[in-house]
Amino acid sequence: MKLNIALLAGDGIGPEVIDQAVKVCDAIAKKYEHHITWKPALTGAAAIDAVGEPYPDETHEICANADAVLFGAIGHPRFDNDPSAKVRPEQGLLKMRQKLGLFANVRPTFTFPSLIDKSPLKRERIEGTDLIILRELTGGIYFGERGRKDDGNTAFDTMTYQRFEIERLAKKGFDFAMKRSKKLCCVDKANVLESSRLWRETVQAMEKDYPEVEVSYEFIDAVAMRLIQWPKGYDVIITANLFGDILTDEASVIAGSMGLMPSSSVGSKVSLYEPIHGSYPQAAGKDIANPLATVLSAAMLFEDMNMTEEAEEIRRVVNKSLAEGYVTEDLADGGKSYKTSEVGDWLASNI
Amino acid sequence: MKLNIALLAGDGIGPEVIDQAVKVCDAIAKKYEHHITWKPALTGAAAIDAVGEPYPDETHEICANADAVLFGAIGHPRFDNDPSAKVRPEQGLLKMRQKLGLFANVRPTFTFPSLIDKSPLKRERIEGTDLIILRELTGGIYFGERGRKDDGNTAFDTMTYQRFEIERLAKKGFDFAMKRSKKLCCVDKANVLESSRLWRETVQAMEKDYPEVEVSYEFIDAVAMRLIQWPKGYDVIITANLFGDILTDEASVIAGSMGLMPSSSVGSKVSLYEPIHGSYPQAAGKDIANPLATVLSAAMLFEDMNMTEEAEEIRRVVNKSLAEGYVTEDLADGGKSYKTSEVGDWLASNI
Ligand SMILES: CC(C)[C@H](C(=O)O)[C@@H](O)C(=O)O
Ligand SMILES: CC(C)[C@H](C(=O)O)[C@@H](O)C(=O)O
Repeated sequence: MKLNIALLAGDGIGPEVIDQAVKVCDAIAKKYEHHITWKPALTGAAAIDAVGEPYPDETHEICANADAVLFGAIGHPRFDNDPSAKVRPEQGLLKMRQKLGLFANVRPTFTFPSLIDKSPLKRERIEGTDLIILRELTGGIYFGERGRKDDGNTAFDTMTYQRFEIERLAKKGFDFAMKRSKKLCCVDKANVLESSRLWRETVQAMEKDYPEVEVSYEFIDAVAMRLIQWPKGYDVIITANLFGDILTDEASVIAGSMGLMPSSSVGSKVSLYEPIHGSYPQAAGKDIANPLATVLSAAMLFEDMNMTEEAEEIRRVVNKSLAEGYVTEDLADGGKSYKTSEVGDWLASNI
Repeated sequence: MKLNIALLAGDGIGPEVIDQAVKVCDAIAKKYEHHITWKPALTGAAAIDAVGEPYPDETHEICANADAVLFGAIGHPRFDNDPSAKVRPEQGLLKMRQKLGLFANVRPTFTFPSLIDKSPLKRERIEGTDLIILRELTGGIYFGERGRKDDGNTAFDTMTYQRFEIERLAKKGFDFAMKRSKKLCCVDKANVLESSRLWRETVQAMEKDYPEVEVSYEFIDAVAMRLIQWPKGYDVIITANLFGDILTDEASVIAGSMGLMPSSSVGSKVSLYEPIHGSYPQAAGKDIANPLATVLSAAMLFEDMNMTEEAEEIRRVVNKSLAEGYVTEDLADGGKSYKTSEVGDWLASNI
């Protein structure tokens, strides 16, 4: 099969972890006789520095015409504490999500047997966790009207949802639930927010189309608590953009390491695959970042292309590296560790 | 001293836990020669049933003229999954916060040595946790304009903040920080929200008035993660209404039991004291609910009245009940447990 993959390395450790995923994908392509054409493109602070724009038009063209996008990370500390910065790397991320129509962020949360004791949570609470959070990604308060009034002394942001946006996301949730344990939880703040009431109303109306799926409705504050207390209580969660932002990061604690958690952002035409960790600027250029989350994101890419064997092969080799301790320092418990690039080479050569 | 305390028992287990706090306060009054006049008033579903309104005017009069308000819990499941219910118990809570001007919700999070192993988090992660979350309580998306458009197919909510609302809350945060370890963390989503950028701007401008306080700024998604990974990294957190709603509930996991965590909601005239747990309808009327969070909320009440000894005495007797296992079934680990009312009697008689 021929695959055109847009390659957005981004900022910080982005380029380093992306490099390893490329090695792994190339090894997969070789083994299974595919042909991958990589289309590198600029994004984030790197793009601001080069062309003054965090998601340039050329980058969009490349992504829109690709079969999939593989993404590293963006963000640079020099923008973080400067509320007045006009152009910010994150704007690129948001513009990209919107222009590519990446409406559903899919974040699986699971534990690795060999790493379970790294979690701040007790083993018995998390062992066997296997849940998916589906975060709406192109609507809500991220994209509503915002601004200032009263000489800048009042600021506002608008959380807006349209029924079709909720339906589209919920449909993915129901579909996932049907393939899994048939349990769906809609997380909102319907006791306060009108947009959450529209969520509930919309999802309730869809229940009849999925009679086998058991649907529950919970408030975001309660879920922020229960997700940590008993993650095995959840299977598929659907939620709005802002709530999903918070819950998915919180859920990453369960696995004990952000360095392992992949994600996909699904659009109607093209989808994007990225590790959930950020650009981790402190580690940039040191060849120490953990590439596994990016590599596992590539596995999600193959999975979505119905290349199940290829996806399985990647997961197998990742598990092998964990079992044999061929890992970066964050997972090495002070024992022997390997460089980012060494881990990438090892994974590729074991395929 | 003479104290007039408005008593809002509310729904579910509210009345039962409030009764125990009254016993304890009366015992304190007797020991320290105070005189407490209790002014019971209706709120929540109980008030809807009685007078069609979750926060009736008479209740407001009683609260506004009291020295303090002691509050149980409100909420009833029959309203939860009915997006069309016109009158909801929670509206009473929100109206009360707004009309009484309870702008700062103060939620301490700490661990009890005897209960530390109840936490889903590992002992070494949480032992010694002592943080305070200050949640803005009368602004933000809870009180902005909301509604429907396009024949009900679009819903919106507005998150609005004015500079003075942020200043008022932040000032309390700086004051707490000065009395504690001089560390303040402002939690927001300034990489996306304009209102968060106003938060950052406002707090940054206040830094010069508190040169001793070390201020940090973190994003809500990152904090949702770090709070669980390493709660000892935080001392005083200030944040907006919605973010605080989520973070305070999440933080309650640290202590291992919601049944223990008190809170206050501070206004410029009168303040309110309540357990952080909800109305827990499944347990209502069974005399099994844990009253300690409400009792500890009463301790916060005395503390704020500068009755430090009285507050300490309440905490002492609560610790004694924990140490001696005179507790409700939720804390008894399958061992001997006591009824809600028995725990209240025991606490009162040990004062
Ligand atoms: C960088 C930021 C704008 C972004 C978001 O909030 O969506 C990030 O936190 C994420 O989750 O991808
Ligand atoms: C009941 C609900 C409206 C309320 C809130 O969101 O403020 C509750 O969750 C709380 O934290 O007191």
